[in-house]
Amino acid sequence: MTSQTPSTTHDLTTPALLVDVAAFDRNLAAMDALLPGARLRPHVKAFKSTEMAKRLAADGHHSFCAATPREIEGLVAAGLTDDLLLANETLDAARLGALADRANITVAIDSDETLDAAVRGGVRSVLVDVDVGLPRCGCDVTDAGRLAERARAAGIDVRGVMGYEGHLMMIHDRDTKREKVEAAMAVLLQAHEMVGGDVVSGGGTGTFDLNTWCTEIQAGSYMLMDTQYDELESPFEKALSVLATVVSISSKGWIIADAGLKAFGMDHGNPSWDEGDVFFCSDEHITLLPRELSDWKVGDRVRIWPSHVDPTVARHEQFWMVDGDRVHDRWPIDLRHW
Amino acid sequence: MTSQTPSTTHDLTTPALLVDVAAFDRNLAAMDALLPGARLRPHVKAFKSTEMAKRLAADGHHSFCAATPREIEGLVAAGLTDDLLLANETLDAARLGALADRANITVAIDSDETLDAAVRGGVRSVLVDVDVGLPRCGCDVTDAGRLAERARAAGIDVRGVMGYEGHLMMIHDRDTKREKVEAAMAVLLQAHEMVGGDVVSGGGTGTFDLNTWCTEIQAGSYMLMDTQYDELESPFEKALSVLATVVSISSKGWIIADAGLKAFGMDHGNPSWDEGDVFFCSDEHITLLPRELSDWKVGDRVRIWPSHVDPTVARHEQFWMVDGDRVHDRWPIDLRHW
Repeated sequence: MTSQTPSTTHDLTTPALLVDVAAFDRNLAAMDALLPGARLRPHVKAFKSTEMAKRLAADGHHSFCAATPREIEGLVAAGLTDDLLLANETLDAARLGALADRANITVAIDSDETLDAAVRGGVRSVLVDVDVGLPRCGCDVTDAGRLAERARAAGIDVRGVMGYEGHLMMIHDRDTKREKVEAAMAVLLQAHEMVGGDVVSGGGTGTFDLNTWCTEIQAGSYMLMDTQYDELESPFEKALSVLATVVSISSKGWIIADAGLKAFGMDHGNPSWDEGDVFFCSDEHITLLPRELSDWKVGDRVRIWPSHVDPTVARHEQFWMVDGDRVHDRWPIDLRHW
Repeated sequence: MTSQTPSTTHDLTTPALLVDVAAFDRNLAAMDALLPGARLRPHVKAFKSTEMAKRLAADGHHSFCAATPREIEGLVAAGLTDDLLLANETLDAARLGALADRANITVAIDSDETLDAAVRGGVRSVLVDVDVGLPRCGCDVTDAGRLAERARAAGIDVRGVMGYEGHLMMIHDRDTKREKVEAAMAVLLQAHEMVGGDVVSGGGTGTFDLNTWCTEIQAGSYMLMDTQYDELESPFEKALSVLATVVSISSKGWIIADAGLKAFGMDHGNPSWDEGDVFFCSDEHITLLPRELSDWKVGDRVRIWPSHVDPTVARHEQFWMVDGDRVHDRWPIDLRHW
């Protein structure tokens, strides 16, 4: 791979992860209109790129959240140090404490053990993570006050609460969704009363405009999108695709391109293709059923829509920022792994 | 991440990809007993590590197959140059031709376009890839002779044929499978009669002992295995797991560990856990339903079995070669991406 940026997509090695710059910019503008500055805490787990994070900082978003210690380490190394939240429990807190003189870092805690790890590790600020209905992390609401008190007794700045209503993201009916989000956030606000602090953090791309109870929204997928989030009514459009090369054509009705299981996150099922159906994916192949077989020849390029943005991005080394076939830039996906 | 190898798994950052060395060695021995030396052409797409390839070379396997140009480039850089097959169509053949003075490289072709790319790119040897029933690459059997003739006229060494019966790998009944493999290989042998050459290449972990028609078997998954291949009757055992740390425990009956969608290939569904059920995976979490909730505390380590080896391996930077909790070595997964 060359370190030079090719000038057109025709010169890219495939599979290649493309970002349509115009769609990406529109997604950012649509989000900024509702959630400017610190009202949005962009979630870097969705894009894992310090270049993309810098683009958001240029738009006025200086607080980020992350899912792994390595994401935090990379943001700090890139100088994005204003307000970083590991929105996740970790026992590996010493890696974050080691950066406490260089960056404002807050960690989610939901148990004595994760609080103790934060204290031992030299972390200075925490949010109390509260279970609001997603079967994942978060303490019971009745335990939130006790944890906050213990944290303050240990000299930790308790900034507030966090609760992720991830189980509600994909509800299509907006009235039902608003009702359920309100109920989930009522739990979080109840915890907040006991915990105190300025921050009530939650939300995501699927609830960014309905969750009016949080002081900040943790959204990340909105800027690149995927076919699953695209099913929802939202101002965001798909900006992320995988470019592949047609390497084989069968007279039986299918064509094969060189992007497979290792180029996509597959947990939401197959990716999609505008010019026909996706038959199946192999490690390095996608078998496509075009509407018109005769339209295709070996060497043609196809663009495939991922079904889930985060695990797709995490499979690639870089975003190619494009306008049609023109390549503007290469943004390394430099916050991967652990 | 430190470049030193921790001495126990307790010191590993999680999620971490573990290889049980004893099980791995037994898998290699079981395969060698049936397919020694060049009878096996190990498929590096399954493990993507030059260290692992060197281990196979030490066992007498010096011919490898690969799914991407980058895998070939990495094998050459590591000095594994005896007999490398890109078992896949590519138009990016110049990357392989550039290595033709340093390594014996063969490329699969199934069309005029992929043959022309090989000729233009300076590739010296090809196999004619034949459709044996898997809806993917491979020319029609009736076209194989013509392609071989065209290749030879262009000065290319046509070494033989290739055909992958991937659609038959997961048939559980061995008699049915043998019958279907025989029928698929009859097509390949028919092509071979027209093409000539010494090589008839095909097969995989699911047919390694039933496919007696190929001169060499392209298997890779057998050495690490996964829960899907483990359903088949075979001498191979699961050697690959993902180590994760329990970061949260819910009184509602689940525990959460720090290995999720970004640590597993998810196209075969959820990974598996011996001590209970897998509820679901998020980006960086797995929610587990243990048989006994009271057995677990935050900080415990769990080992999770991947459902599909190849796309799981491709998500990680290294294998940790372990014996129980003892870490023997770190083998970089250095053949990833494209």
